[in-house]
Amino acid sequence: MSVQLRKPQDDDRCHVVLPAFVPEFGDVIPEVRVRYETYGRLNAAGDNAILLCHALTGDAHAGDSEGAPGWWGPLIGPGRALDTERYFVVCSNVLGGCAGTTGPASFVPGTTRAYGALFPEISIRDMVRVQRQWLEMLGVTRLEAVIGGSMGGMQALEWAVMYPELCARTGVLAATPVFSAMGLAYNQVMREAITSDPAYHGGDYAAHGVAPEAGLRIARMLGMITYRTADLFEERFGRTTSDELRPEYQVGRYLRHHGDKLVARFDANAYLTLMRAMDGHDIGRARDGVANAYARVRGHLSFVGIDDDLLYPAKAMQAATAKAQACGVHATYTHIHSSYGHDAFLLEFAQLTHWLHQFLSAC
Amino acid sequence: MSVQLRKPQDDDRCHVVLPAFVPEFGDVIPEVRVRYETYGRLNAAGDNAILLCHALTGDAHAGDSEGAPGWWGPLIGPGRALDTERYFVVCSNVLGGCAGTTGPASFVPGTTRAYGALFPEISIRDMVRVQRQWLEMLGVTRLEAVIGGSMGGMQALEWAVMYPELCARTGVLAATPVFSAMGLAYNQVMREAITSDPAYHGGDYAAHGVAPEAGLRIARMLGMITYRTADLFEERFGRTTSDELRPEYQVGRYLRHHGDKLVARFDANAYLTLMRAMDGHDIGRARDGVANAYARVRGHLSFVGIDDDLLYPAKAMQAATAKAQACGVHATYTHIHSSYGHDAFLLEFAQLTHWLHQFLSAC
Repeated sequence: MSVQLRKPQDDDRCHVVLPAFVPEFGDVIPEVRVRYETYGRLNAAGDNAILLCHALTGDAHAGDSEGAPGWWGPLIGPGRALDTERYFVVCSNVLGGCAGTTGPASFVPGTTRAYGALFPEISIRDMVRVQRQWLEMLGVTRLEAVIGGSMGGMQALEWAVMYPELCARTGVLAATPVFSAMGLAYNQVMREAITSDPAYHGGDYAAHGVAPEAGLRIARMLGMITYRTADLFEERFGRTTSDELRPEYQVGRYLRHHGDKLVARFDANAYLTLMRAMDGHDIGRARDGVANAYARVRGHLSFVGIDDDLLYPAKAMQAATAKAQACGVHATYTHIHSSYGHDAFLLEFAQLTHWLHQFLSAC
Repeated sequence: MSVQLRKPQDDDRCHVVLPAFVPEFGDVIPEVRVRYETYGRLNAAGDNAILLCHALTGDAHAGDSEGAPGWWGPLIGPGRALDTERYFVVCSNVLGGCAGTTGPASFVPGTTRAYGALFPEISIRDMVRVQRQWLEMLGVTRLEAVIGGSMGGMQALEWAVMYPELCARTGVLAATPVFSAMGLAYNQVMREAITSDPAYHGGDYAAHGVAPEAGLRIARMLGMITYRTADLFEERFGRTTSDELRPEYQVGRYLRHHGDKLVARFDANAYLTLMRAMDGHDIGRARDGVANAYARVRGHLSFVGIDDDLLYPAKAMQAATAKAQACGVHATYTHIHSSYGHDAFLLEFAQLTHWLHQFLSAC
């Protein structure tokens, strides 16, 4: 797909600083810087905003800008599905991440020492509470929609449960109400890869001037497998090899390429912190179960599942929809047909456009 | 399932030494020691043998012995599906392995130095050629059946293609005629985990008195995920945690337990050598394609697929069966229903017994 890149007219990359924040399980974070981007204009009533929540290795750059395509670029802009002439589209980097919002790689205030492994454990709900405070500072009074995929979908669902009065609509793509045992299993292997890298130094690698690059590379390579499908790998790579003397299979090179790319831009402690938050994702936790959580939801809840999603199977998302409906939620299910698997929520823009038009016009 | 352990009457754990062996792609191996076990007695004509081929981390101990259950123990013995009063059941550790047959951890002849990374690349076909020479030394003239699962299934299928006149029946469980791109992808991540462990020392870890334990542990943890299913993990572990202060999910502990167990008994270079052989598995290689390979097969070829096998999906095995039939092979497909996934070929003994009775009685 050819994406026309242009600078959104109302593009704005900013940050705000929130006062001391107390995570659910961890020590207080003295200040939280929130890095965000906006597209479009907030209206006088402050009620035309759409919040996008990014996935594990994503960031606030959802919309395209010159030379820098956003992760949902083709969907954001004047006349696009998320029409910036109508909506104020916003996205922030998550708490615990490494793309501008406070996370393990940030300096402890008043020092030039990174938090590292001392960064507190944070939850998906903590991410959402930070987003809530940030949106209040922006003057947002109500959200036309909260939308996210994968870890972003976990945040979106928590938004619907935590702040039902603020969410007219919630779009949950490729994410389940409770993180699965298989998801925990893959995360454990990725965690093991990072923490057993000797360069990890118990999380204190920055002080040693190194980084657990090998471990993070392995984690990303494994992650990439779970984001795609066997059919896609077969079709795209098959058993093709490089033409070197000792041949390397193209699919292996592809994974290593993605591993290298992530190592160059992502912090290992942030990766661990965000995986830990995903591990703990369960909308029923401390709420007497999933049914009671759903009972709080007010607006429209739209689940979007994908063919052959290894970690968030369509059947699990259909079951989630049925459960939400049984709890009285106005929940619907939309299916994306794709050979990409999980990552289809970042790639199948035609189907996403179609879904967004329906989702945003339904009341 | 309760397995009654007893010492098979004709149990015999032995080895033979073969002369210089020339692998398909690698340097000559001056001598090959083959470690094997047998159950039952070879008849005078030498034609009542059944060869079992083990999987990646398996070994020759297929049948039970006192205090040491075999990987197919419940199937081997007097009156069992592989009836040792009728058949001479044999199993050898594969070339390149680390359980008694020559592999990377073996000493280079005349030295006290392990081959390590200098062990030549070997193929599934090399494993089969070694097995052929060993069986000749035992006096086996014909095989009632060759049976294997996973990497063992690759060997079984190569037996049917390489020595069709010797194989009355071939049973291929949870293995495809060509290793898939997804299989290559998982192997690449496991290889990356082992080789990027600083203790790997380019394969020369024995000389340094260490071993890439962390890397091999990660590889095994990942392997275990691919051998089981999401449904099984959900049912068995769900989101149960240990009751420590900083809770660890049971599924993660389970994976680490299996990682630790493998590290204690398996050689990392052997793991790499065998994965490399699996990577290269393609019965059509250097034979003008899969159809020409099938055209050589004479006896009955029985494919056994399993529900939700991540690496060797049932649909791929059904397609393999259809392809073999189209090439004139007497091929059949049997399906094992199981929540275990891939590992069902090592666990679903009731269904395996049923299949073996049919398989061995059909002509």
